[in-house]
Amino acid sequence: MSTKLNHIAIVVHDIDEALKVYSETLGLPLQKVNEEPAEAVKVAYMPTATGEVELIQPITDDSGVAKFLAKKGEGLHHVCLEVDNIDESVSQLAAAGLEVLGQVRTNKRGDKYIFIHPKSSHGVLLELYEKGE
Amino acid sequence: MSTKLNHIAIVVHDIDEALKVYSETLGLPLQKVNEEPAEAVKVAYMPTATGEVELIQPITDDSGVAKFLAKKGEGLHHVCLEVDNIDESVSQLAAAGLEVLGQVRTNKRGDKYIFIHPKSSHGVLLELYEKGE
Repeated sequence: MSTKLNHIAIVVHDIDEALKVYSETLGLPLQKVNEEPAEAVKVAYMPTATGEVELIQPITDDSGVAKFLAKKGEGLHHVCLEVDNIDESVSQLAAAGLEVLGQVRTNKRGDKYIFIHPKSSHGVLLELYEKGE
Repeated sequence: MSTKLNHIAIVVHDIDEALKVYSETLGLPLQKVNEEPAEAVKVAYMPTATGEVELIQPITDDSGVAKFLAKKGEGLHHVCLEVDNIDESVSQLAAAGLEVLGQVRTNKRGDKYIFIHPKSSHGVLLELYEKGE
């Protein structure tokens, strides 16, 4: 197993304002800003040589991310760990009594992902990710 | 400027318990667990090819990290971005009206670091870090 840090995602009210800090002032390299309708968010992708920083802004009022922002305010939303075999990881999580959210899903690029409830991962919402073929 | 994601630090009550999840179950590679008396914490270092995940546990009751844990519970403590020139970054932060905490400090390895107040960085406590010579 060679688990890696893939990205962290920070939820913000206004992605353009946040980019002034993270990209213009601090120098994280902005690759693109995309709307991701499946998750009801706009995402600024800032890949670095050592993992990606994402800013996410809800584009509806009723998504999970929108509710997170309304309840907790701006800040870290989740940390994504890239694993070799997500099904194997999920089995190990289950064996350890840890709680995942829903089932493993596959995005349009063929990547697989699932989230782990923060109460099972010491207060951090974790995404597990397996890159598609 | 080529800013990079250096590490994220997650504050926990019991580093051994948290390692069962992050290292044993999820497969992050544990390099070492060290006490860092200057910060009054024990740290588990899990470097990956794409940035490091650290678990931190307070070893006194009155440190900043201990107070953070008592107030907010377990979860992300800070995100560390590695910059080319920390003094230049701090000047740019000041010019943009952002608030840093204290002065740039130097650790025993000669690395320089400073923290940015979460209210200036959209809810995330940021560490800026410049690797020593």
